Amino acid sequence: MTGITNAGSNRMVLLSGRAHPQLAQDIARELGTELVPTDAYDFANGETYVRFGESVRGADAFLIQSHPAPINQWVMEQLIMIDSLKRASAKSITVVSPFYPYARQDKKHRGREPISARLISDLYKTAGADRLMSVDLHTAQIQGFFDGPVDHLMAIPLLSDYVRSVVDESNVTVVSPDTGRVRVAEQWAERLGGAPLAFVHKTRDISVPNQAESKQVVGDIEGRTCVLIDDMIDTGGTITGAVRVLRDNGAKDVIIAATHAVFSDPAVERLANCGAMKVVVTDTLPVPKEHQFENLEVISIAPLIARAIQEVFEDGSVTSLFNGRS
Amino acid sequence: MTGITNAGSNRMVLLSGRAHPQLAQDIARELGTELVPTDAYDFANGETYVRFGESVRGADAFLIQSHPAPINQWVMEQLIMIDSLKRASAKSITVVSPFYPYARQDKKHRGREPISARLISDLYKTAGADRLMSVDLHTAQIQGFFDGPVDHLMAIPLLSDYVRSVVDESNVTVVSPDTGRVRVAEQWAERLGGAPLAFVHKTRDISVPNQAESKQVVGDIEGRTCVLIDDMIDTGGTITGAVRVLRDNGAKDVIIAATHAVFSDPAVERLANCGAMKVVVTDTLPVPKEHQFENLEVISIAPLIARAIQEVFEDGSVTSLFNGRS
Amino acid sequence: MTGITNAGSNRMVLLSGRAHPQLAQDIARELGTELVPTDAYDFANGETYVRFGESVRGADAFLIQSHPAPINQWVMEQLIMIDSLKRASAKSITVVSPFYPYARQDKKHRGREPISARLISDLYKTAGADRLMSVDLHTAQIQGFFDGPVDHLMAIPLLSDYVRSVVDESNVTVVSPDTGRVRVAEQWAERLGGAPLAFVHKTRDISVPNQAESKQVVGDIEGRTCVLIDDMIDTGGTITGAVRVLRDNGAKDVIIAATHAVFSDPAVERLANCGAMKVVVTDTLPVPKEHQFENLEVISIAPLIARAIQEVFEDGSVTSLFNGRS
Amino acid sequence: MTGITNAGSNRMVLLSGRAHPQLAQDIARELGTELVPTDAYDFANGETYVRFGESVRGADAFLIQSHPAPINQWVMEQLIMIDSLKRASAKSITVVSPFYPYARQDKKHRGREPISARLISDLYKTAGADRLMSVDLHTAQIQGFFDGPVDHLMAIPLLSDYVRSVVDESNVTVVSPDTGRVRVAEQWAERLGGAPLAFVHKTRDISVPNQAESKQVVGDIEGRTCVLIDDMIDTGGTITGAVRVLRDNGAKDVIIAATHAVFSDPAVERLANCGAMKVVVTDTLPVPKEHQFENLEVISIAPLIARAIQEVFEDGSVTSLFNGRS
Amino acid sequence: MTGITNAGSNRMVLLSGRAHPQLAQDIARELGTELVPTDAYDFANGETYVRFGESVRGADAFLIQSHPAPINQWVMEQLIMIDSLKRASAKSITVVSPFYPYARQDKKHRGREPISARLISDLYKTAGADRLMSVDLHTAQIQGFFDGPVDHLMAIPLLSDYVRSVVDESNVTVVSPDTGRVRVAEQWAERLGGAPLAFVHKTRDISVPNQAESKQVVGDIEGRTCVLIDDMIDTGGTITGAVRVLRDNGAKDVIIAATHAVFSDPAVERLANCGAMKVVVTDTLPVPKEHQFENLEVISIAPLIARAIQEVFEDGSVTSLFNGRS
Amino acid sequence: MTGITNAGSNRMVLLSGRAHPQLAQDIARELGTELVPTDAYDFANGETYVRFGESVRGADAFLIQSHPAPINQWVMEQLIMIDSLKRASAKSITVVSPFYPYARQDKKHRGREPISARLISDLYKTAGADRLMSVDLHTAQIQGFFDGPVDHLMAIPLLSDYVRSVVDESNVTVVSPDTGRVRVAEQWAERLGGAPLAFVHKTRDISVPNQAESKQVVGDIEGRTCVLIDDMIDTGGTITGAVRVLRDNGAKDVIIAATHAVFSDPAVERLANCGAMKVVVTDTLPVPKEHQFENLEVISIAPLIARAIQEVFEDGSVTSLFNGRS
Repeated sequence: MTGITNAGSNRMVLLSGRAHPQLAQDIARELGTELVPTDAYDFANGETYVRFGESVRGADAFLIQSHPAPINQWVMEQLIMIDSLKRASAKSITVVSPFYPYARQDKKHRGREPISARLISDLYKTAGADRLMSVDLHTAQIQGFFDGPVDHLMAIPLLSDYVRSVVDESNVTVVSPDTGRVRVAEQWAERLGGAPLAFVHKTRDISVPNQAESKQVVGDIEGRTCVLIDDMIDTGGTITGAVRVLRDNGAKDVIIAATHAVFSDPAVERLANCGAMKVVVTDTLPVPKEHQFENLEVISIAPLIARAIQEVFEDGSVTSLFNGRS
Repeated sequence: MTGITNAGSNRMVLLSGRAHPQLAQDIARELGTELVPTDAYDFANGETYVRFGESVRGADAFLIQSHPAPINQWVMEQLIMIDSLKRASAKSITVVSPFYPYARQDKKHRGREPISARLISDLYKTAGADRLMSVDLHTAQIQGFFDGPVDHLMAIPLLSDYVRSVVDESNVTVVSPDTGRVRVAEQWAERLGGAPLAFVHKTRDISVPNQAESKQVVGDIEGRTCVLIDDMIDTGGTITGAVRVLRDNGAKDVIIAATHAVFSDPAVERLANCGAMKVVVTDTLPVPKEHQFENLEVISIAPLIARAIQEVFEDGSVTSLFNGRS
Repeated sequence: MTGITNAGSNRMVLLSGRAHPQLAQDIARELGTELVPTDAYDFANGETYVRFGESVRGADAFLIQSHPAPINQWVMEQLIMIDSLKRASAKSITVVSPFYPYARQDKKHRGREPISARLISDLYKTAGADRLMSVDLHTAQIQGFFDGPVDHLMAIPLLSDYVRSVVDESNVTVVSPDTGRVRVAEQWAERLGGAPLAFVHKTRDISVPNQAESKQVVGDIEGRTCVLIDDMIDTGGTITGAVRVLRDNGAKDVIIAATHAVFSDPAVERLANCGAMKVVVTDTLPVPKEHQFENLEVISIAPLIARAIQEVFEDGSVTSLFNGRS
Repeated sequence: MTGITNAGSNRMVLLSGRAHPQLAQDIARELGTELVPTDAYDFANGETYVRFGESVRGADAFLIQSHPAPINQWVMEQLIMIDSLKRASAKSITVVSPFYPYARQDKKHRGREPISARLISDLYKTAGADRLMSVDLHTAQIQGFFDGPVDHLMAIPLLSDYVRSVVDESNVTVVSPDTGRVRVAEQWAERLGGAPLAFVHKTRDISVPNQAESKQVVGDIEGRTCVLIDDMIDTGGTITGAVRVLRDNGAKDVIIAATHAVFSDPAVERLANCGAMKVVVTDTLPVPKEHQFENLEVISIAPLIARAIQEVFEDGSVTSLFNGRS
Repeated sequence: MTGITNAGSNRMVLLSGRAHPQLAQDIARELGTELVPTDAYDFANGETYVRFGESVRGADAFLIQSHPAPINQWVMEQLIMIDSLKRASAKSITVVSPFYPYARQDKKHRGREPISARLISDLYKTAGADRLMSVDLHTAQIQGFFDGPVDHLMAIPLLSDYVRSVVDESNVTVVSPDTGRVRVAEQWAERLGGAPLAFVHKTRDISVPNQAESKQVVGDIEGRTCVLIDDMIDTGGTITGAVRVLRDNGAKDVIIAATHAVFSDPAVERLANCGAMKVVVTDTLPVPKEHQFENLEVISIAPLIARAIQEVFEDGSVTSLFNGRS
Repeated sequence: MTGITNAGSNRMVLLSGRAHPQLAQDIARELGTELVPTDAYDFANGETYVRFGESVRGADAFLIQSHPAPINQWVMEQLIMIDSLKRASAKSITVVSPFYPYARQDKKHRGREPISARLISDLYKTAGADRLMSVDLHTAQIQGFFDGPVDHLMAIPLLSDYVRSVVDESNVTVVSPDTGRVRVAEQWAERLGGAPLAFVHKTRDISVPNQAESKQVVGDIEGRTCVLIDDMIDTGGTITGAVRVLRDNGAKDVIIAATHAVFSDPAVERLANCGAMKVVVTDTLPVPKEHQFENLEVISIAPLIARAIQEVFEDGSVTSLFNGRS
């Protein structure tokens, strides 16, 4: 037979956008390697330029980008980096977006709206992504938006381990801040020894004109430590409002636990002053110094992502990262 | 200029699979037309054959197929009909699937599972569908699975109008049968004068080995008429179990309301004997004689779908069908 | 250079749908391995659920599914399994469909018909298949329906080896049961020492009103052993009708040989009683106990498929499986 | 509502490549219009340039190109013209290829071959074609190669009308020149009053070394007028060889009928001297003066294509052009 | 025939992003209509929300978005608006991007760079755009990046008409500010009565170490009025540097003409003080009050775009907008 | 775990079309291997047939085809070969087109033209190409036409090394033969020690009716050796016209350097007689004996392509082939 033959080998490379370099470095360190050196900057009119400092030919590329504000900037940078990887002959491209952008626009609430969460998946695919990795998607259905493998990692085990270490499990109620997160609260309850559930909801008697909306707690929280959970904290209005209602209704303590610390203004002020005993989040999004406050606990997500990347690269099973308590 | 010019005109045609011909005929009658005569049968080895009896060239085709058991049979028939329409030069093909098939497999619950709900959308698209119309999707995110316009119709207004006609609104609690439907219960509550909410959930103290799972009601239902809502009733286990729990916890009456009457065995027996005052569903799925029982109320979905088809054909706005009470 | 490098390796896995587990096990045994353990069942309303019991990340997956009745069920199961493999990060997915479904609907016979055989290829592709393997396609053009490599295996060598062992080659005529299989009969004739050809066809003098259709043999068969060939036997009407005509026209013996034993009712009864000396088929489709009769010979297709899978996995050449007599 | 509204209208335009301008003009005349004036020429190095002389914005464009030698030249020109139409905003593009190029490479005869007939369909689609129209495809399965509507026109009614006018139907046998066209011969036989069938095939006793191949007639032809049919005549070797065999076996007369007059050298010489009473073809391919001979009858295909174009433009039914005798 | 028929009609709607509302309003006014009322805002974390206030079903939608800084923000908004239009069933979607974003990244200058200009076209297409309209693309090859019709409008006629009104044509030299724009300078020269050409280029004798780069003028400019042209002015460094060199080399006057006024800092200061007699640009990008200076002339691009939209909507020819002086 | 595992290995194969076999053989020899033996011929009607003589399963295939006249023939042959490779299960397919076909039709110069250069990229992709390799694209933007990695090799270093060996660098001016190649001339100038630039352009005073077009030189060339550069020489009209103008304007000597020797008639005659001291080209296109003349120097491109193929196969970096002088 004609041709030239050589033994195969696989190379994995890590790349990072500019949105949250610390996380990417932490992941690299966990894996015992370094990020591909990368030139990335914006031109005067805002156009983003990217160039990798090393060959990525034939490599399994993992491109880490986080999505704090200005989120559109980081999405575009990420798309441009994917395009660069594709044109530079990477063998496969895995997009690592710990906080999936536009996750809340996952359906049309009304006519003539976009479904931006699906659009994001399509943009990734078009730019050249083969696979997606993310943490605690706002709704798990977003997995189905991407046409390819999705590694959906879960931070609940990390967060609940922490919570268990600071509360008396026998007196805990898990609370959803609205009607849409009760299912997730149930998953938390399982991890906290079968704790009871409650939720807060806004109500208004629409048969009485001009009546103000009021918040109610459904479920038993009196005298109990409430673990108020959510996937993300944006401006913090809903969740700190829920703290107030819980305390007004006799809760003993409130712990807030959420994966994604979006912390848009005035979240930090609200959280610091809402009376919660603890606020525990991960660093899927950067939590800069000025966003930190006394009761805040930030848990590193890097070990979880590093382990998932390793399993993907070595064709191991990421399934264990979804389910297990240990 | 060369060429031949004529005035444009639009033609809309209705076609139906064999799964639920009554619904298709009802829709046609509402629209004042008839279904395209169609030859459809199965060969001895189960292969499905389809041929339309009239030209559909240049027409806006609306293909109505419902999805009772055997659901795979009806999906394949539908795909084959779409292929026929595409190859017969229909101008546009709208798939009308009142009960979206495989809606519950809308995410990976564990590793190595399919996301069949997304697959269905892709199969529709591949066969040639341009647009999708459905009623009360199991999760609204399924809209984002289809790469094109989706008309998502809502039966809650129809169902709640009926419920309002048979209950005392001042003494109603809306109940979700599990933690995943509380958001939908909230939408119901708005339509029932701001009624309070409750939900049922399974619990188990996992710190106590071998403890049996028990069901609990969270929320205030004692002495109240409970409207127990869901998008579909399959075998009816969860929902009739919820009826029992509600009654055990002091509910005065229970009304069950759901859009899709899947009614797999032994749903009919369970529902007939569960003690619910009323069970109200629509006919998005066929409800054959032998599935009907005394307290069952079946509301026709045909007018809603007919109106949506008309608006799509005439480029009107379907948005009003989503939101409005009136 | 940054990144992590390891030596490459390849893993091949075999998976099977529920349509014909025996064949998949036979293939696995030939290859000296086992099928990936798989959970597959139907929900009460007929929706199919599938989950693989082992990681398939990075593996070359060969998914074996046969297509007896109810064929739509097995196609859908297969598509769902492909989707699972894709989302579980299989490196490549080869669909092994020994009997290609809907092969006879490979063109529009009249307007407004589907081309379901092409549709099937597109559905495979959309679900995630990279490659297709099949045996004795109804028409070889179906290879061109799939957008990717197709391994088209041929059972004629297996079948003709058997036939040669039971007939006197010097007195054989190869007969096509209709006008569409004469080319295939010619291939058989080459393998049987240059045997003469004949075919049966229906005729009707359309200039005489109401004249009944009659069957005629074209070619020399008197006193000869006729090998009546086809790619599949469905209800058996055509082929057993041909036996009758051959015998009426003086054939000494008739042997029926076909690759795919569809055997829809009343094929078994017809074949058992048609007077053929032998009926030889392969097990590309399951031939259950109750379908077996005295003169039936079932030849295992597993060694052929196993060898092809091995060559695909090892990047050898499958071409030799097409052509060679040895 | 905002925006501007006007009444719709449709415009159809006809365009032609340079391969067979006469046919395109004939079609235009049948339709009562003219071809869009077009600049098309080759640069010195063989690159083809095309520009249309009129706006085609919003028009239903029918692009007529025939495919005589040099066939690659005409395929490329056609692809470039499709690209021009797409970029010039034609509303729809129908490719009219009366003789489908590369139709005979419709499957892999052996490993490592292309399936060029499928490739051609994909190239048309990629360039921008929405629909395909062709006459007497070499195999009907080619319809399934194109991902969109295919109008498959049939010349048999035209050709058989002519044949009926010159023969005594009661003494006719329809003959296929090889084993692959017997099915088509059968269709002819139906149109010629249920005439009997025969075919010619090459045979060789492979058990005798070095034995020469010989041609045999299967079927009854002695003393009869043979209508020898095929879809195309390329070099004419097979078909004129068949004439000889038929005459050697006692045929009274032979008429050759084929749709596509490829007429590669030395077809014309062979046909003129083979002893056939008549050779009847259509002008799907140009039949230049120097290719015409005494017994040749060329039937115009333009009326058939013109009628099909009109029906497509007016959303009528082309089905009637497939089937009907009347 | 079954079905419902009505007369066709076409509706065109105009929509605008938030980047340059004035331009969109000017275009609407030119066309005698109004923009579709649109809700568009950013959430606290930067996610963009869009909803149209009117039905766009069945309409030919023209979505106008300009791309000043922050350019990534406006691209993402535009993509989200396209997605909304697609899901709201617009019949066709034309993206109007007067200044094509990332036009300068139209090739890889070095390895491992993106080709962002191609990426932008693919993102438009993926989101749902059917057609693209733009003005004076940085390189005309960008037309080929979009898979569909591109209407490439040219501002040179507008700009050169103005220039002719302020100069003595007999004493003009057209100057390219670098070696890449000489072809465009030639097009200008034709419009200015066959004026002579010149260009400026940087040079460095690389055989002499550490020699400074110097700028040279190639061509005859002494005592002449120089029209210094470019497609865009970003920070203005190159073009104002060219003014200096021209003046140092004896130019009498310099007029700067460019289509796109990017005007990144410190362009305005540089232009105001560079000694150019006039700076003429269009408003494809917003030129806010604080960017205007004494010698600046801003020509409205709205009439050109409005006319092109009208021709597209009415299926007229946009070709005339490319070429003609008249 | 089930399945079979083996160590990976990679195989690279070289294949060649019939357009320029010498180049392919030279590349193979540089790499120390041989071309895959290939059957390729044309049928009588011009249809091209291709079959590879060895398995290419799992191989990284590099398909070398050059594009002299008749260019359409070679493009089609190349597409058919790509299809063969795809269907024969090559792991990756790199199209090596040293002279990119239709490169000059890279934009619409006027309305209703094709963009054939983009079309070519799409045809490659559709047929199955994963990657493209080419030399000195007419415009670098063509890289962006292909949806995948493009290895753009540059011959300027090879050509300029030769030029430096035959001229006195201190007295050289680099000249572009028209206004569109000044940028490329600048790249040449850098490689020739910072040589000065000039260009030739056609001019006509359009205010004077019927005035003849004249050619002018802009830049300093008197008494200097002019290196007249271009990417390709087709009929040679422009470039030999430029030689004349340069000599008329006092140039001492002229050397012509171009990558692609298209050499359509009457290029050879013109070049041989134009008075240029040297004409230097590469053999990206075949330069047959009869096209060679006294002053012609043909530099082999095979080493450059061979090195690039090797780097692609071994996942090395091709970037160094773009930029470096050394």
